[in-house]
Amino acid sequence: MSSQLENTFHSLKQAQSRLALENRAAKDKALAAAAAAIDRDRSDILAANARDVEKARSGGMKESLIDRLLLNDHRIDDIIEGINIVIRQEDPIGKVRAGWTLPNGLALEQVTVPLGVAAIIYESRPNVTADCAALAYKAGCSILLRGSSSALESNKALVRSIKAGLAEGGGIAGTIALADSGSRDEVDIILQARGWIDVVLPRGGKDLIRRVVENAKIPVIETGEGNCHIYVEPSADMEQAVEIIANAKLQKPGACNAVETLLIHQDALACLMPKLVARLAGKAELRCDAPAKAAIGIPPAGLALKDATENDWATEFLDYILAVKTVNACDEAITHINRYGTKHSEAILTGDLRAAEQFRRGVDAACVYVNASIRFTDGGVFGFGAELGISTQKFHARGPMGLEALTTIKYLISGCGQIRG
Amino acid sequence: MSSQLENTFHSLKQAQSRLALENRAAKDKALAAAAAAIDRDRSDILAANARDVEKARSGGMKESLIDRLLLNDHRIDDIIEGINIVIRQEDPIGKVRAGWTLPNGLALEQVTVPLGVAAIIYESRPNVTADCAALAYKAGCSILLRGSSSALESNKALVRSIKAGLAEGGGIAGTIALADSGSRDEVDIILQARGWIDVVLPRGGKDLIRRVVENAKIPVIETGEGNCHIYVEPSADMEQAVEIIANAKLQKPGACNAVETLLIHQDALACLMPKLVARLAGKAELRCDAPAKAAIGIPPAGLALKDATENDWATEFLDYILAVKTVNACDEAITHINRYGTKHSEAILTGDLRAAEQFRRGVDAACVYVNASIRFTDGGVFGFGAELGISTQKFHARGPMGLEALTTIKYLISGCGQIRG
Repeated sequence: MSSQLENTFHSLKQAQSRLALENRAAKDKALAAAAAAIDRDRSDILAANARDVEKARSGGMKESLIDRLLLNDHRIDDIIEGINIVIRQEDPIGKVRAGWTLPNGLALEQVTVPLGVAAIIYESRPNVTADCAALAYKAGCSILLRGSSSALESNKALVRSIKAGLAEGGGIAGTIALADSGSRDEVDIILQARGWIDVVLPRGGKDLIRRVVENAKIPVIETGEGNCHIYVEPSADMEQAVEIIANAKLQKPGACNAVETLLIHQDALACLMPKLVARLAGKAELRCDAPAKAAIGIPPAGLALKDATENDWATEFLDYILAVKTVNACDEAITHINRYGTKHSEAILTGDLRAAEQFRRGVDAACVYVNASIRFTDGGVFGFGAELGISTQKFHARGPMGLEALTTIKYLISGCGQIRG
Repeated sequence: MSSQLENTFHSLKQAQSRLALENRAAKDKALAAAAAAIDRDRSDILAANARDVEKARSGGMKESLIDRLLLNDHRIDDIIEGINIVIRQEDPIGKVRAGWTLPNGLALEQVTVPLGVAAIIYESRPNVTADCAALAYKAGCSILLRGSSSALESNKALVRSIKAGLAEGGGIAGTIALADSGSRDEVDIILQARGWIDVVLPRGGKDLIRRVVENAKIPVIETGEGNCHIYVEPSADMEQAVEIIANAKLQKPGACNAVETLLIHQDALACLMPKLVARLAGKAELRCDAPAKAAIGIPPAGLALKDATENDWATEFLDYILAVKTVNACDEAITHINRYGTKHSEAILTGDLRAAEQFRRGVDAACVYVNASIRFTDGGVFGFGAELGISTQKFHARGPMGLEALTTIKYLISGCGQIRG
């Protein structure tokens, strides 16, 4: 292990054991001071970000990625508001989740405690730096931030402000560290840090997540991959269905909670397809199976239309492309989703109570919607303040992750001399 | 992947998706029939076990291990009672853990659902086979059982009975499978089964656990390693302290929740040590630091006494050996425990409220006791019926694991046409 990172692990762990003893008022006060420090230092942060952006642009980075990297006054305000939302969240620590007394009089309590030291390995958005730092602090955890090299100057400036603010607010600045060597080895060292890091969260593209999952010797929470579906029944409100599908496809097609495949009951094709193509023509490409294609009738001007292939069912397009498949029944839709989906966000649009219930029970996913857009799967929207990411695994945390994902439990057992017979 | 195991994974997954839809009454009825089948088939099970025991004995297995392997009528009764306790447990599935409504009217519920397919890799005790099968079934999970080759005949007979019983009770027998090829490759294949197995639980010695942790590409719950402490303050009831220490050391020294190191406040030495050595002389070896040794005075006849070494603090003896270390204050005890302990079960014996509170907050362990023996850390004792094992990790499950460890959550979101703005 590189001695520099080893020192970082050690100091994060020590700082965390002190933070674990802080009460809510102390944590909130330190976070408020961190938010104030970001506000005060905003010109330094924007200047650092401008250096990152300039370097990225001269390196030929795509404008859509540069937009993710870019900070401005408005985005700094959002970062500060994110910290304020975390401050307003309940303390996730010290909750008594259950308690009971054994026949011999031993009193048991199951209470929430901080998970320990978290690491996050993420791509270019600098707001993730502040969001995750704030969530970790509120949950009593230390956090090692490993952002992308393209955002290094921005992250350095943000972390400098946050740490200065925490210290000014009487908090424990040593709970936050930025892994800033920029080397790829750094990631491997983090992934091997058994005994030092309690969880690693990869947040970014498929390749990053796969690399982390395959190499980690510490617990991982997988995030983000979303091959999501909307299934439309004949009893759905078709006007509403068209708007929900358009929202789920067009509002932010690069998001993990955008729709990728539309499943349509055969008896809904004739009613839905003409309305849908009218709404999506010129906005999204459709890849249809034969019955869906036949139901379109005369295609409107500007409709991009292809035949769907088997491969389309398994693809997260992250683009203005929608695959369309016809099914004969709700259970066929459920089977398709459980086969091709990534267990992220799935919706049924229906007026039929039995179908809604069957879908809710049968679909194995973090978030199962009835008659709404799947774009709502988001920690901020769910009310968690910021989010650490959206877990697509079933282990430890599932769906949008806020403070609770950074907690574990401890049993406190109180006796008066009991021994085991 | 070997095609036989691949088929097993496939059928476990399919069966689990059906079991997930069963209600409590159906699951309990099937489990009751499994218990009845074990009762009916007890002569076959005992005959199969006799073959295992004979083979183990002729292979030179230690009597203590043969005792772990051995079944008799009384132990079969215990296995049946274990299933009955699981039947009486509440259904862990379908609990609404939280629910709220967003400003736009979307109604969210966080409900418990089965984790999916579990695998357990365990050593010779055949009761684990029935305990884990029953817990998994009640939690709506499939389970792959991979016992040791020494218990293969016993496990085959038990699994045959359980599956027959489940089928007779209208249940889904395909949710349970025994990995019975006996090859070591089998374990490696299980550990790589991403997408098929949702969690693997190693239950056995250190080497087994390390091998699983280092090789698994699927989530693991580590179990069992217990370097546990009792810390005695001057304000403790010393008669009670002696009995608690004796219980924690002598009642079952091979258990993971036995005490390994005793930490004594320097002001408690003079009062405690003479009483303690009188109680333990001839029963356990003491490995003392210098102040503790000095406090013994004239050693009673039969006292095995050695000087403690640094290595003793880090050792899980699993034997009639107790290391004894003197500390100057409660926070020194906490620091020692957090450095050398395995985060399993830790106790403070005290009459001082502030010390008790400091210890409960400061010690990072699954179970923190005040004034009681640490031997109570056990799923059965805690009231979970059987146990899957005792998690020594902080991720997903901590401490004794019952039904809850085999669950995850799903968000159910109900709308009336909401789209994201």
